[in-house]
Amino acid sequence: MDFIRDIDGGFSVIENIKVSGAREGKYGVSVILAPQSTASGVFTTNKVVAAPVTYTKKVVKNGIVSAIVVNSGNANCFTGQKGIDDCEELVNLVSKDLDVPANEIAICSTGVIGREMPMDIISKVAYESISKLGDKPENSLAAAKAIMTTDTFPKEEACEVTLTTGEVIKIAGITKGSGMIAPNMATMLSFIVTDAVISQNAIKKALKIAADKSFNMIIVDGDESTNDTCLMLANGSSGVNVENDGEIDSNFQEGLNHVCINLAKKMARDGEGASKFIEANVQGAESFEDAKLAAKAIVTSPLFKSAVFGGDPNWGRIVSAIGYSGCELNPDIVTIAIADDEDETDLVRKGEILAFEGTPYLGCAEKIMQSKNITVKIDMFLGDGEATARCCDLTYDSVKINAEYTT
Amino acid sequence: MDFIRDIDGGFSVIENIKVSGAREGKYGVSVILAPQSTASGVFTTNKVVAAPVTYTKKVVKNGIVSAIVVNSGNANCFTGQKGIDDCEELVNLVSKDLDVPANEIAICSTGVIGREMPMDIISKVAYESISKLGDKPENSLAAAKAIMTTDTFPKEEACEVTLTTGEVIKIAGITKGSGMIAPNMATMLSFIVTDAVISQNAIKKALKIAADKSFNMIIVDGDESTNDTCLMLANGSSGVNVENDGEIDSNFQEGLNHVCINLAKKMARDGEGASKFIEANVQGAESFEDAKLAAKAIVTSPLFKSAVFGGDPNWGRIVSAIGYSGCELNPDIVTIAIADDEDETDLVRKGEILAFEGTPYLGCAEKIMQSKNITVKIDMFLGDGEATARCCDLTYDSVKINAEYTT
Repeated sequence: MDFIRDIDGGFSVIENIKVSGAREGKYGVSVILAPQSTASGVFTTNKVVAAPVTYTKKVVKNGIVSAIVVNSGNANCFTGQKGIDDCEELVNLVSKDLDVPANEIAICSTGVIGREMPMDIISKVAYESISKLGDKPENSLAAAKAIMTTDTFPKEEACEVTLTTGEVIKIAGITKGSGMIAPNMATMLSFIVTDAVISQNAIKKALKIAADKSFNMIIVDGDESTNDTCLMLANGSSGVNVENDGEIDSNFQEGLNHVCINLAKKMARDGEGASKFIEANVQGAESFEDAKLAAKAIVTSPLFKSAVFGGDPNWGRIVSAIGYSGCELNPDIVTIAIADDEDETDLVRKGEILAFEGTPYLGCAEKIMQSKNITVKIDMFLGDGEATARCCDLTYDSVKINAEYTT
Repeated sequence: MDFIRDIDGGFSVIENIKVSGAREGKYGVSVILAPQSTASGVFTTNKVVAAPVTYTKKVVKNGIVSAIVVNSGNANCFTGQKGIDDCEELVNLVSKDLDVPANEIAICSTGVIGREMPMDIISKVAYESISKLGDKPENSLAAAKAIMTTDTFPKEEACEVTLTTGEVIKIAGITKGSGMIAPNMATMLSFIVTDAVISQNAIKKALKIAADKSFNMIIVDGDESTNDTCLMLANGSSGVNVENDGEIDSNFQEGLNHVCINLAKKMARDGEGASKFIEANVQGAESFEDAKLAAKAIVTSPLFKSAVFGGDPNWGRIVSAIGYSGCELNPDIVTIAIADDEDETDLVRKGEILAFEGTPYLGCAEKIMQSKNITVKIDMFLGDGEATARCCDLTYDSVKINAEYTT
């Protein structure tokens, strides 16, 4: 898509926003300051909801957010009224220090469940973070780092999108999350900012579409956190409106999908204990929903993910996962292929098994399975439903990280 | 339940049945001969269905089964028309050798997916197995052994049930399965025989109830096999009818549940790479369905199962799993306890966290987590829904078994 151009610098590519991050031991605080932005969010559907999620849902409902404060190290979940009080305390502190109305400040947390927030440390780190606010690439990187828990690298993205009108806008984002992490160092947190002008209805719709193609299509361990949050702000600093007659510019949507998918890929690649990155692409499903079911079943299957770790082109596990996914399927006509960045081979072609012992298909498949990036391609030949899901492999280290961290 | 008495001997406790098992390398064949039995079955819901499942569903529909033939080592799945032909060939062979009508013979397979049945070896082992048919405990044990794949021990159960009428019947069973096993050595297979007299409608109903409380409530890896089958035969050799006015004797149902639950427990305990056995008991759910959702979410959560392996009383992961299970939940009133065979402690009581660092609750919990048998007890205080699910922990070996077996 030549209307999308990736650029470096994370949030620093957007005019009129300032960001920062600071850390003390396992506690980090990031601040994103983007005054009077149109805002939307998608949140965990877990019935056990952390206090900051409850709090921020109300803030976002008003449609205007000026700042986001994020802490790592404590999820502020299962903390009752005290948890909500702590949210308010932190927001009031930030509100005074930044001179921004309290009801325009969103708050997110990630970390251990069931412990009160250590407000003395968090407040101190928050003050420090605010004192470092800036608009340089290093400020964006500091923000991406301060929200990390067991992540092994910071995750930033930015791109420039040429709209169908020829005008140009930018979208940038940071994310954290590599599983619902020991002990309950939960959570995917993603923050996207664009300089586009966009209405509250449109930003809500666009973010939902992008999240469904990206964050909602990655699986690390299959456990859904109590704190998952993706917030998007549009500060309008480009002066470019991305809506025409109430329709969102299709290039803007593609650009937003692009940023979210790249952030999601980085999360999957950094899954706890991961040694390989896996994409499952399903085509020809009876519907989009069916394609999603099948793709997600593949990237959720612990058996398939163990096989990838072991380098085994075990297509029987792929077939089995699709079979129990709930999607429509005719095993007699399905095609299953695997690929890496260089090679591609069919394993099963229109129901016929090709990858027998001694065949070149199996030989090629075994070579591909040694790669770091593996794509599974399914064609169902039933319709035009298409979806892609992503995950990492299941390794000894995946178990180790979750088993050895004790409370 | 003092009307149920466990007994040794597996199938040998039932009059008028003969069983056997033989093995050559990774291929085994078990035969269960119970002429003119009333029969019912429950089968995988995977849309990729192995040939023997398709075949046996038709046989069972007729309601009368005289023999079951089971092979391990090859699943006869994704094998097209050839797979069905191989089923028929094996059935015809057994039919002649046993002098039993072909349409009264059920057939089951477990093993690798996507390879044609090695009919020469399977036929040879089938003949050998039939030549060894007998009614002794060692015959039952041989049958339980011949269906094993990566199972580490054979699994048999038998009990005597005193009905509400004072009459006595027996129920016995064998099972195999410890995950959907590398490489697709799939499958739970369970075979139950009773000497009770029971109608086809009643046996169907009773088996469904028992399976829902047992086989459908265990999780090893979360992958559903293409070959899962549970068959139940009633040969009526006791002469005792377990139906009164169309109602199934409640003690008979309890006895059947008991046998199935004990078989299921053995499967969970023998889960691939397992080091611990886990039961999740949910009480006070808004409905039975809700209780099932919550209990299954706990035993499915890779993060919780890794924590058990690591000996960490990580109740946050339990709360989180219930939260995304889809059941109704009020976190402010939930109680969470853990227990082993000796001790029990609350971790969260009516929404209040008890197991803080330094409390005796946490100390006791940490001790319990070192046990081989761990029970998680949840009370939702929302209704009278109750359910129990079972699993094993997630260990390095669970990954190893599934990663290192190459095609």
